[in-house]
Amino acid sequence: MADLDIIESKTDLVADWDHLMRVFIRPEDDASRQTLIKYMEQILFGLHEFLKKNVGITEAKSLKDLSERFKNTTICEEPEKKLADVITCLIREIAPHAVNVASPYFVGHMTSAIPFFMVHLKTIEAALNQNVVKLETSKVVSVVEKQVIAKIHDLIYRQSRDFYQTHVQNTDTTLGVFTEGGTTANLTALWVARNAMFAPKEGFRGIEAEGIPAAFRAYGVERCVILASRLAHYSLRKSAGLLGLGNESVIPIDTDADYRMDIEAFKAAIARIQSELPETRILAAVGIAGATETGTVDPLSEMADICAENGIHFHVDAAWGGPTLLSRKNRHLLKGIERSDSVTIDGHKQFYMPMSCGMVYFRDPEILDVIAYHANYVNRWGSVDLGIKSLAGSREANSLVLDAALKIMGAKGYALLIDHGIESAAAFAEEIARRDNFQLVTAPVLNILTYRYCPPAAQRALALAEVSEKIRINEELNELNRALQRLQREAGKSFVSRTTLKANRFSPVDIVVLRTVVMNPMTDIEILREILDEQEEITARHLADHLPVL
Amino acid sequence: MADLDIIESKTDLVADWDHLMRVFIRPEDDASRQTLIKYMEQILFGLHEFLKKNVGITEAKSLKDLSERFKNTTICEEPEKKLADVITCLIREIAPHAVNVASPYFVGHMTSAIPFFMVHLKTIEAALNQNVVKLETSKVVSVVEKQVIAKIHDLIYRQSRDFYQTHVQNTDTTLGVFTEGGTTANLTALWVARNAMFAPKEGFRGIEAEGIPAAFRAYGVERCVILASRLAHYSLRKSAGLLGLGNESVIPIDTDADYRMDIEAFKAAIARIQSELPETRILAAVGIAGATETGTVDPLSEMADICAENGIHFHVDAAWGGPTLLSRKNRHLLKGIERSDSVTIDGHKQFYMPMSCGMVYFRDPEILDVIAYHANYVNRWGSVDLGIKSLAGSREANSLVLDAALKIMGAKGYALLIDHGIESAAAFAEEIARRDNFQLVTAPVLNILTYRYCPPAAQRALALAEVSEKIRINEELNELNRALQRLQREAGKSFVSRTTLKANRFSPVDIVVLRTVVMNPMTDIEILREILDEQEEITARHLADHLPVL
Repeated sequence: MADLDIIESKTDLVADWDHLMRVFIRPEDDASRQTLIKYMEQILFGLHEFLKKNVGITEAKSLKDLSERFKNTTICEEPEKKLADVITCLIREIAPHAVNVASPYFVGHMTSAIPFFMVHLKTIEAALNQNVVKLETSKVVSVVEKQVIAKIHDLIYRQSRDFYQTHVQNTDTTLGVFTEGGTTANLTALWVARNAMFAPKEGFRGIEAEGIPAAFRAYGVERCVILASRLAHYSLRKSAGLLGLGNESVIPIDTDADYRMDIEAFKAAIARIQSELPETRILAAVGIAGATETGTVDPLSEMADICAENGIHFHVDAAWGGPTLLSRKNRHLLKGIERSDSVTIDGHKQFYMPMSCGMVYFRDPEILDVIAYHANYVNRWGSVDLGIKSLAGSREANSLVLDAALKIMGAKGYALLIDHGIESAAAFAEEIARRDNFQLVTAPVLNILTYRYCPPAAQRALALAEVSEKIRINEELNELNRALQRLQREAGKSFVSRTTLKANRFSPVDIVVLRTVVMNPMTDIEILREILDEQEEITARHLADHLPVL
Repeated sequence: MADLDIIESKTDLVADWDHLMRVFIRPEDDASRQTLIKYMEQILFGLHEFLKKNVGITEAKSLKDLSERFKNTTICEEPEKKLADVITCLIREIAPHAVNVASPYFVGHMTSAIPFFMVHLKTIEAALNQNVVKLETSKVVSVVEKQVIAKIHDLIYRQSRDFYQTHVQNTDTTLGVFTEGGTTANLTALWVARNAMFAPKEGFRGIEAEGIPAAFRAYGVERCVILASRLAHYSLRKSAGLLGLGNESVIPIDTDADYRMDIEAFKAAIARIQSELPETRILAAVGIAGATETGTVDPLSEMADICAENGIHFHVDAAWGGPTLLSRKNRHLLKGIERSDSVTIDGHKQFYMPMSCGMVYFRDPEILDVIAYHANYVNRWGSVDLGIKSLAGSREANSLVLDAALKIMGAKGYALLIDHGIESAAAFAEEIARRDNFQLVTAPVLNILTYRYCPPAAQRALALAEVSEKIRINEELNELNRALQRLQREAGKSFVSRTTLKANRFSPVDIVVLRTVVMNPMTDIEILREILDEQEEITARHLADHLPVL
């Protein structure tokens, strides 16, 4: 085992050249190989054992105590730890204070268990270490990426066979790009829409070259807005801010009683801009397919009609809901997405990939030309260099993971997961309706719902109360639900998240709700019932004095 | 083994619920665990065997032929492959056509071999699958990230012990952020500089809220520019385009004879803007610490002086060179970086991390407030939620990998790698100077150099020729070197890249050069000599008729 003493020996933590060379060569002899495999076993199953034991979020160790242990900012001159010790430390000291997102009782966020093969696939990605910014550091992997992008484009846009044969491996056109996540996917879509709207023309070299003030002058524009429902993800505001349009240019459109974009309000906003604000351009309208807070889906077909009539770039943020298209049973929920100009989908959400992977797709295979950049030492025009039309430069080959996962799961494998989430959320909604102490606030369309603890007396009082009384009762309920969510999280068995649904024309006051995301196939209705049971227990035991005074 | 039939059986590739559940539970019995470990072994060593055999870029298979095999765009309904087959296929069919970036003969790009433990660390990252956007999906990992960010900040800025004790775990301040790569790091730095310059003031809610035209009006500005050497990375132009300033706002400053920013030209540009263009603001000046094409380092201390005098945000793009700070012997090469306002460093470059990981650091722990965003359902003010001040939303925990790598390597381990690269590049430069047929074009400062094939007769002729003759000879040399680089790449044994150094006041014509990046510790002077030998052979055998006519 002398070969591996950098990671094996119990003493002599010294950096020297011989040690260093050994970590760059994978060991040749059997004993050394066994050692490396042993570490992998420890990673795969050591973590597993721990996660099995800790179903909730974390051990009861306050963040303040934890952070006291991580305050040294010196990088040691000599090595501090061997790989074996690093692994042990990660399993014994870090993992117990990390969040067990894989627990079926962790139903609060869009991060969940992933199939174990995803870890293998990510390992392959790291071992190959290709950089898809350019062909010279990726070759076939860039070709695979173009193929998997075309597969998802086909899933969304269902163009003709000829269309895909023309574009799948075309070096001049691009059907989509992998991004770091949904935020950069939405940013890319709006960047493209901005550049397409303010394209070069006589006497103007384009907004990308000359900037916004020159673009507005060239086109006689004073302001540029983006229309999206009030429930749109905050990455849209961040994107508008980044792009220099100002985040106030994202105009929130009211939602209807089902938390979908109110189509009449959408039409009215467009009409008002067109009649009253001739110097304002609508850069894009964004439909949500799976709102972060409520899981609701905007009326995409109606939005597509209106956008087509008015020549507006129609972007769909399907970061969450996109993979629903793989389910024959439920894909109708996203009807209209095929008429969008661009679509965001996250890989690390309902494709169950490891963190982090986003994607953005465009109906027009040439529209990405408006953001093309190249460099002397790398990307050359007419090459497959994927970095030419992407926000990022150097980039890992997440496409390999998605491509392999689609092959291992099949559309039907994913559909089973999607359908399970949707059906379990529906069953959970029924269970909530059945229990007197709870009130369903937003019914699930996909696999997300919100509800709150609201005892029968409060429900009756709310039904009859005047506005000011309604506000008072709701404020007390808000406090109750905030406390309930915190106590359940701190108990460490289950985790639901909470959010605040803003006052709207259906509710005169902000409503604090408990939010459940059912994406883990191990989360079944029994577990969801247990979560409600625990909430009732916690309220009875600890929050009796928090109940609204009626 | 019945437990694992989804990945083991040779038939029955059907997606059903039982199969699905099994891939979400890591197997409990020994046999199944052994199977999963066997796959990991195949990944670690199967790939390794292949990579050993293929020292060059790839097998001789044209991209056109390859892409013909990746044109199907249908996602199959049922599973197509078992995990075992996916792994075998990746090793046998994909890897042979990927690029062996780990070969010591692959010296063309900034992607290279990584220590094998990096693959283990990346596997841990994937298995834990934390999302550092918020504490509720990461807990201790966010604390670890804050610590490792402070470590690198300390490496760059060397502030007082008190400073780091105050900020390392402070939930209100931020010393830096992890990004997808160098491009998003540079983008973040310029985004911050833009928002800090056009901050909210009476009657103006800030550029992030109101956008660029309103900001320019509020501050009486007509244009905003960024000053950087002609060798600056194209991500700066991309960032300026994205941010709405226009990529033409990046003003290229001439370089001196050593390909560093010419300080007199820099001063002159500032003076001209200040005297002639009162409505133009200088948003930032960018110094390069390791230019992508030449590896050269701008005169950072002089730039820091000038920026301080003129109140200009001084950003250093040390995506490549940053880790040089870990070397006691060579950190002086980056002198002045500690006086910058912000610094970009890539993890996947000279920290030898797997793709992809960027970082950006700020001297002022509060400046990132100007890009803060939050959402109801997640980040709350005053929390450790790292997503509040980052371009990305959901984000993987690359900080765990960097933190562990620093512990395993020690500063000295990294220093050995850095010093080896710098010393080998210097030795290679001497070797090039020694050989009559080559001409060193840019001498190495760090571990990058450029040179070209230029036979003695051409060197003599160039020394004496008139400008027009110089241009002709150089154009012929450019053709020769383009052909040489391509033939060597296609031969598949070694890979150097090529780039074109633009005409400047020292050279009347664009020069095509061969570019070598020495970062793999297995790349020694013997291998570099072999690469030159091969270039001489290729030229003698295939390019005799490409030699310049004299």
